[in-house]
Amino acid sequence: MVQFVDVRHMRDWITAEGVEARIRDLAQYIEQDFLRWQSFDKTARIASHSPVGVIELMPTSDGELYGFKYVNGHPSNPASGFQTVTAFGVLSDVATGYPVLVSEMTLLTALRTAATSVVAARALARPDASVMAIIGAGSQSEFQALGFKAVLGITDLRVWDTDPAAIDKLVANLTPLGFSIVRATSAADAAAGSDIVTTCTADKAYATILTDDMVEPGMHLNAIGGDCPGKTELDADILRRSEIFVEYPPQTRIEGEIQQLAADHPVTELWSVLAGQSDGRTSQQQITVFDSVGFATEDFSALRYVRDSTAGTRFADDIDLVADPLNPKDLFSQVVPQEARLSR
Amino acid sequence: MVQFVDVRHMRDWITAEGVEARIRDLAQYIEQDFLRWQSFDKTARIASHSPVGVIELMPTSDGELYGFKYVNGHPSNPASGFQTVTAFGVLSDVATGYPVLVSEMTLLTALRTAATSVVAARALARPDASVMAIIGAGSQSEFQALGFKAVLGITDLRVWDTDPAAIDKLVANLTPLGFSIVRATSAADAAAGSDIVTTCTADKAYATILTDDMVEPGMHLNAIGGDCPGKTELDADILRRSEIFVEYPPQTRIEGEIQQLAADHPVTELWSVLAGQSDGRTSQQQITVFDSVGFATEDFSALRYVRDSTAGTRFADDIDLVADPLNPKDLFSQVVPQEARLSR
Repeated sequence: MVQFVDVRHMRDWITAEGVEARIRDLAQYIEQDFLRWQSFDKTARIASHSPVGVIELMPTSDGELYGFKYVNGHPSNPASGFQTVTAFGVLSDVATGYPVLVSEMTLLTALRTAATSVVAARALARPDASVMAIIGAGSQSEFQALGFKAVLGITDLRVWDTDPAAIDKLVANLTPLGFSIVRATSAADAAAGSDIVTTCTADKAYATILTDDMVEPGMHLNAIGGDCPGKTELDADILRRSEIFVEYPPQTRIEGEIQQLAADHPVTELWSVLAGQSDGRTSQQQITVFDSVGFATEDFSALRYVRDSTAGTRFADDIDLVADPLNPKDLFSQVVPQEARLSR
Repeated sequence: MVQFVDVRHMRDWITAEGVEARIRDLAQYIEQDFLRWQSFDKTARIASHSPVGVIELMPTSDGELYGFKYVNGHPSNPASGFQTVTAFGVLSDVATGYPVLVSEMTLLTALRTAATSVVAARALARPDASVMAIIGAGSQSEFQALGFKAVLGITDLRVWDTDPAAIDKLVANLTPLGFSIVRATSAADAAAGSDIVTTCTADKAYATILTDDMVEPGMHLNAIGGDCPGKTELDADILRRSEIFVEYPPQTRIEGEIQQLAADHPVTELWSVLAGQSDGRTSQQQITVFDSVGFATEDFSALRYVRDSTAGTRFADDIDLVADPLNPKDLFSQVVPQEARLSR
């Protein structure tokens, strides 16, 4: 039997401890796995593009466990009542190839994206950062806010979205949770005076959410939404005067903000900063950019956490996904026709 | 909710009509999809190798539906009571990216491999073929036999396996189903006098299951087991004097029997034979080889068939795999902490 965490289980599991605690714990799993980067079998995700969106498979393995996530990205989905991003994932045992966990990952991806952002920001933002701009108040925005509150203690937000109803929703969701929120009047207004700028918009296009004049020395840019070929958020001029940090360069070159730059533009891998092998932020004045696209190891970390935390609890069921004949060479015994069964 | 076919459902669905009928119907779906080959987004499968096996993802899309299969191959699994190959698969809606079907595919892959073999053999074997050798009496063997019986009327089998217990099992399973079975004393003895030779062994090695002297003019070789880099079954000399037919050349060059040949050795794509664009068998004396490795479109066809056939029946359940907030931009509403909920 395979451990199965469906939507209800995931929801109950998250709320049992709360979003902040889950993101904090998940950030530890993600950091642990970044610190053993070399032990992972890494590949850029496999994308199937259509005119309206993309469906991706994101596999990786550490030699003991294999994991993959299925995820879509359809920016026009909300207009029809569907979400932009949905996901599910699987862990399996490398020794046998048998799956051991199937989990919903729409909610889990929201946690893991926020957790990855805070792992990066803890290493890259100024230690005294206290105000964050959030540009794009969609599904990811509250999770970002709670992650930064849980791990970096940030409660001052400046929020902008082209959709006022999305801002209303964010303010309603977050105000009761101890945030002080300024409704900005533009992206520039949101960025003004912020120490960290999180961009999490969803358009599948070369968009310029942040222009160069909005970016001040010392800022950390947490660029989440540019994660697809032809989908970016930052003015290339910002990138040219920043230190750029990425997850897995072969994937980010295709999907990230740096698709706007030369293929050999220098970038630093986040894992090597965490491992102390590369510099992170080196001055108060430096502009740091985490050009985040989401990498398979982060989902692997999230699935590990869910597996560890839900095994044998009310937050998981069993499903029968693998036919299991007594004699492993006799799969046919599972579907023996009646006439053959009688003659045995 | 997502339509879910677990092991029990799959077993019941197969036995409700019987293995032969399911393979016959599935062969039609597979042939339909081969006939619209150009409409598929095709890629070689993504393999993660370990010392003991491989885990693969096999995605494809026709622009309306996207499908993928997860499948492992672990030749040493049966020694520990596990199966060599297990699988499950997913179909989703390209327009929204939402999954619509999750299905067990260990049993279904057994059907689809047999169905693909008969689609190829119907086009490539001599029309008067009446005796088939089966070399390798593992999990796939009975499905091959029933497929060839259902579609080509073949009931005379000559069977060989290095494991006598595996032959016993095949004979016990198939004798009641109208087959006349000769227990061969070697691979050569199995091949002698056969019109079709099916090789379905599982070793992950360059093995020579068939040597050149065992192959007679006019034979059709249905080579199933060579499907991984470093895993082949046929003497390269056989290939050099045969017409070779493959599914998707970029994948077969890596995984199939033809990995033993030059990268530009001529091969014919099966779809183009079915579509009447290339010759299949052109003489009674010709040796034809279907160098089968299993391609994503065949699994897509199998998932399509299962979806069509089980929707709204007792052979499928619903599972809750996609978090579905009323406001698609308000994913956070799914996990609002208690304190925020109260204040709304």
